[in-house]
Amino acid sequence: MKFNPFLEAIKTYESGKDIDLIAKEYNLKEVIKLASNENPYGTSLKAKEAIIKNAHLAHLYPDDTMIELKQALAKKFNVLNENIIIGSGSDQIIEYAVYAKLDHMKAYLQCGVSFAMYEIYAKQVGAKIYKTQSLVHDLEQLCDLYQKHKNEIKIIFLCLPNNPLGECLDKKDVFEFIGKIDKDCLVVIDGAYNEFASFKDKNKFIDPQELILNFQNVVYLGTFSKLYGLGGMRVGYGIASQKIINTFYKLRAPFNVTNLSLKAAFAALDDKEFVEKTLKNNFSQMKLYEEFARKNEISYIESYTNFITYFFDKKNSTDLSEKLLKKGIIVRNLQSYGLNAIRISIGTEYENSRFFEEFLQIFSL
Amino acid sequence: MKFNPFLEAIKTYESGKDIDLIAKEYNLKEVIKLASNENPYGTSLKAKEAIIKNAHLAHLYPDDTMIELKQALAKKFNVLNENIIIGSGSDQIIEYAVYAKLDHMKAYLQCGVSFAMYEIYAKQVGAKIYKTQSLVHDLEQLCDLYQKHKNEIKIIFLCLPNNPLGECLDKKDVFEFIGKIDKDCLVVIDGAYNEFASFKDKNKFIDPQELILNFQNVVYLGTFSKLYGLGGMRVGYGIASQKIINTFYKLRAPFNVTNLSLKAAFAALDDKEFVEKTLKNNFSQMKLYEEFARKNEISYIESYTNFITYFFDKKNSTDLSEKLLKKGIIVRNLQSYGLNAIRISIGTEYENSRFFEEFLQIFSL
Repeated sequence: MKFNPFLEAIKTYESGKDIDLIAKEYNLKEVIKLASNENPYGTSLKAKEAIIKNAHLAHLYPDDTMIELKQALAKKFNVLNENIIIGSGSDQIIEYAVYAKLDHMKAYLQCGVSFAMYEIYAKQVGAKIYKTQSLVHDLEQLCDLYQKHKNEIKIIFLCLPNNPLGECLDKKDVFEFIGKIDKDCLVVIDGAYNEFASFKDKNKFIDPQELILNFQNVVYLGTFSKLYGLGGMRVGYGIASQKIINTFYKLRAPFNVTNLSLKAAFAALDDKEFVEKTLKNNFSQMKLYEEFARKNEISYIESYTNFITYFFDKKNSTDLSEKLLKKGIIVRNLQSYGLNAIRISIGTEYENSRFFEEFLQIFSL
Repeated sequence: MKFNPFLEAIKTYESGKDIDLIAKEYNLKEVIKLASNENPYGTSLKAKEAIIKNAHLAHLYPDDTMIELKQALAKKFNVLNENIIIGSGSDQIIEYAVYAKLDHMKAYLQCGVSFAMYEIYAKQVGAKIYKTQSLVHDLEQLCDLYQKHKNEIKIIFLCLPNNPLGECLDKKDVFEFIGKIDKDCLVVIDGAYNEFASFKDKNKFIDPQELILNFQNVVYLGTFSKLYGLGGMRVGYGIASQKIINTFYKLRAPFNVTNLSLKAAFAALDDKEFVEKTLKNNFSQMKLYEEFARKNEISYIESYTNFITYFFDKKNSTDLSEKLLKKGIIVRNLQSYGLNAIRISIGTEYENSRFFEEFLQIFSL
């Protein structure tokens, strides 16, 4: 049987490994997962309560208008319900963007290393991919490459801050950049980790309302998977002009988010204490990773996220990841991104101390 | 901003209305939803317990291998894990099939009236749609239309039993039909309601193992949304040859099913008592709908599902649905399918009696 020829080129996404499976495989009592940038403080109590309270309604299809969560997001961001689409993770909004704008005659643009899903979805439709030589976002390079191929490039992805590298552009530079882009090119601002960046430095804050008031050709992406501690529930959102949202809606399957996910996200949005604790602890623990790196002569990029990426010179990231895994510490090896580096999610104080301990032990042998 | 031109033609799917929203809108104390073919006996206790037990893990990404649920399905159907893909509802497997096989140069074939999502996904890729004159599945007409356009037709959807009409083909006729189809045409057997049909009449039972042993060009779809009472959790599956499954995997986004959905589905699969009760009650209550139709001179097609479709001659289905809605009874008006008919999910004894009562009252006025 023949299939869509573009599918041949696709490698499937390599996701973080499951704790239970690792524990079984290596016969470990404790497994610490610092691989998927989940919230180390668990599920917000309010979200957990919402799930438990609604568990008996699992047989009913979700409210497909998603009005409750939409209104809460509209209020938070001071936009209209009609400016919002909710997806199974913000990944799904990336999918809508790609399927709405790209095909095998078109291309998208990103920095040298960014979130893997941009590329995976683009390959599904056979689109061409332009990446800057610079691994991190370099607006000059992005602008040059765009100008050179502007007839082809119909999406630009800006990941602010950037997963898996951690750096973040300033808002004012981003706005200036978007101003130079043709109105028919969609600029996707992936803000999956933007709350972390904004907390550390106000200059990184992208206000979705301000963004869409200024530009008709942008979509802002947010997620409940990171700061809001709901990675397992798959809820993200896109904020854009009504025209863009209406088009994305044509690609959205009904009931794309579970009813318990909608309830959990609505409750999590209200748990300000949990959010505050997560942000504060994240950056105080991040300092320990920076100190550790300096002490042990590991290069890193200053991170505006809930993870930090260590780059190696002589050490081998694959070898290191495997050795850590056997000790029950899961980190993300970035070899699949072509980097000799590991991405470590900032965990709890205990989890981080365990990482430092095992890391040192591996290299003292 | 310009978008993919195929998107212009798409009407978004009209989903069943949410109970809470209706209650508010019409100021009703009780709302009975007989519109979305959910399980009227609620969520299986085992599934509910699994959700509550795992609620505190909502922050962790799902195990993307889905090994626990896959193994359970593999065992149930006596196939390999590699023959299975799990989706966000079986809808999502329809999406994979369409995106893997169709584009604007190709077509799919279905009977005159069938599940709306086939058409919606096909339109997203600009594919052509062939429907038989017969509303219900008529294999002769399907065969003729296929022979006439076999160069274009790359998917045939057979919905067994058929949503929203309720009729069901016999397995032996289906197998004979598939034998006449070219190996490059994918036959999708949508078995979302097949457990209901098989319970009523063994001749309707499609065994996925037997199906894929006999044919390399088929995929069987099943769901947890109906019999297993998990409509809100979005879990369905496809069973096919490894080659088809591998290709669908290239279209699957990671973490397409929530972790609590995986846990709930695994538990529901094990709740034989719940399943048995649902099937038995469904068909004893169905008898009341048949009697009611005969008494009141309403036409209906014998149903092999958990719903029944009433066809009207003089009454207007839109008018009727609206009047029922104001009384707190939600049914599915099939006007959007071009039919003067309503589809009624078989509810509990109480819910069904309320339907009969209000229906009679509307027409005695």
